Amino acid sequence: MTLDAAIAAVLVDWGTSRLRLWAIGTDGATIDAIRSAEGMGATEPRAFEGILEHHLAELGARADVPVIMCGMVGSRQGWQEAPYVAVPARLDTIIARAVRVTGTPRDVRILPGIADRSADAPDVMRSEETQLLGLSRLAGPTADGLVCMPGTHAKWVLLDDGARTVAAFATALTGDLFAALSTASVLRHSIADGAGTDGDAFDAAVAASLAEPATTLMRLFAIRSRGLLAGQDAAHALGTLSGTIIGHDIAGALARFGRPSRLTLVGGGTLGTLYERALRVAGIAATPIDGEELACEGLLAAARQIWPDRLPAAPAAAMAH
Amino acid sequence: MTLDAAIAAVLVDWGTSRLRLWAIGTDGATIDAIRSAEGMGATEPRAFEGILEHHLAELGARADVPVIMCGMVGSRQGWQEAPYVAVPARLDTIIARAVRVTGTPRDVRILPGIADRSADAPDVMRSEETQLLGLSRLAGPTADGLVCMPGTHAKWVLLDDGARTVAAFATALTGDLFAALSTASVLRHSIADGAGTDGDAFDAAVAASLAEPATTLMRLFAIRSRGLLAGQDAAHALGTLSGTIIGHDIAGALARFGRPSRLTLVGGGTLGTLYERALRVAGIAATPIDGEELACEGLLAAARQIWPDRLPAAPAAAMAH
Repeated sequence: MTLDAAIAAVLVDWGTSRLRLWAIGTDGATIDAIRSAEGMGATEPRAFEGILEHHLAELGARADVPVIMCGMVGSRQGWQEAPYVAVPARLDTIIARAVRVTGTPRDVRILPGIADRSADAPDVMRSEETQLLGLSRLAGPTADGLVCMPGTHAKWVLLDDGARTVAAFATALTGDLFAALSTASVLRHSIADGAGTDGDAFDAAVAASLAEPATTLMRLFAIRSRGLLAGQDAAHALGTLSGTIIGHDIAGALARFGRPSRLTLVGGGTLGTLYERALRVAGIAATPIDGEELACEGLLAAARQIWPDRLPAAPAAAMAH
Repeated sequence: MTLDAAIAAVLVDWGTSRLRLWAIGTDGATIDAIRSAEGMGATEPRAFEGILEHHLAELGARADVPVIMCGMVGSRQGWQEAPYVAVPARLDTIIARAVRVTGTPRDVRILPGIADRSADAPDVMRSEETQLLGLSRLAGPTADGLVCMPGTHAKWVLLDDGARTVAAFATALTGDLFAALSTASVLRHSIADGAGTDGDAFDAAVAASLAEPATTLMRLFAIRSRGLLAGQDAAHALGTLSGTIIGHDIAGALARFGRPSRLTLVGGGTLGTLYERALRVAGIAATPIDGEELACEGLLAAARQIWPDRLPAAPAAAMAH
């Protein structure tokens, strides 16, 4: 347990399948952090407060320490709805539109998501807007332009106004589609856990999806045929499956938002590495940056603005923007 | 039980998930037929003969009645392998390459599938080649050109030489992808069993996939967003899902094989109706024809050629081609 006097605020990213908390000191530095699998997707509405208070006690945060949250916890199915801000959305607006949770003695606030309510391209995000806020504060105007946020539901975001505004965005079913095909289609026979990913097969598949996105369904079935006819190994099959889908995702973003020469890639790990490689095949340089760090930075920016007495202004470097 | 003296041959389509038999008289007419769920996918190699003989006894087919089969029963995992014929493949060749099953007192033969062994577009079919043989015999040269065979793994086939030769073909993961997304992705929440398919949503989704196949992953996720933002109903969601995937399938075929003004559509039922509607959106007239009838006709053509003493030449109309 930490000395509670040191905690200025607690930052919380509460998504569908996971919960992360950061205890922040008055200097803005992280004192302690907690990760939990208590995602809001499996949480009853009346259980939110108890789970949060349990972890706050673990961190040693007294009853007067305020909490700022982002993520699906603010959806209609979450703790309390924080209604979407519409695009184009200034990132500062999500701070101004934070919702105070009612019925709790503690000061708990939830940042809203962003929505595109147009009839032909309706779309929503929750938590990515907070990462983008963090990106805007950390990277400043250099983050202007296209941002790629890979995942189960990959987000492609166009920042403008010196990376202060979400001009437009689109979500692709990328990771979800990959998982569905890997587990519930005939292609499950072609891949194997732990077989690795053949890099050449991946690159060739990315290039094919970029060159001819229309034939994706045929190139997916060819993974099966290649196994039957040529005894293709599982690493080749996985590289082709992965490259076909990621390449198709990138082709969609270029069709929707135009082709940049470089973009910001939010996300580390294997998926980030695969996207960086795929973007290179597309002739696009990617600047990778960790998403969790961005979420923490975005929540911190919100906390500073909402509770300036508890968290004095950020140091000059972070305020430059 | 039928009088066995009347049976000239038995035709069998033995696929992964189903088995169909037709008892044919010396005049080529169907005397009796059986449908069974005993697909080869769930059949042990040593069980094939027993299952076949059981149904032949049901039909009253004596030990001297020959049997001609097509489908996955001729795959490496089937009863006995009938090696693929390579494209371009004259449809007559699949009759000439029929394999006689060894170790059975009865004369049992299996028609081979067709394979494309090229490195960049490997592909295989088993049973569709027999439907195409039937199509060639029934429709003659009018079937020349593109043939669309919807299904779990949809086949697009280019017939030439007066519909006597499979010039090229490609398989798309269409139905398999639809099923995987319907059951194993976030879209399962948006659709509902028995909700029906909204025709306008279907048409709009087909048109969008044809116009911009690159953005398919984004348009798929929009089904979810539209439900969250606009309370879209399940019929609209299902129409959009179905139209997006079928439209993408058609876009792939047009990219691979060029755009015809009309084509032959093999398959009836709901799926056939949806493809006919989607092809109309693409500006392509479709001539629908039942696939089961074609399989029977193709097997009959093979039986006539292999056992001319048991099945005298077809009447003039069917021989014209």
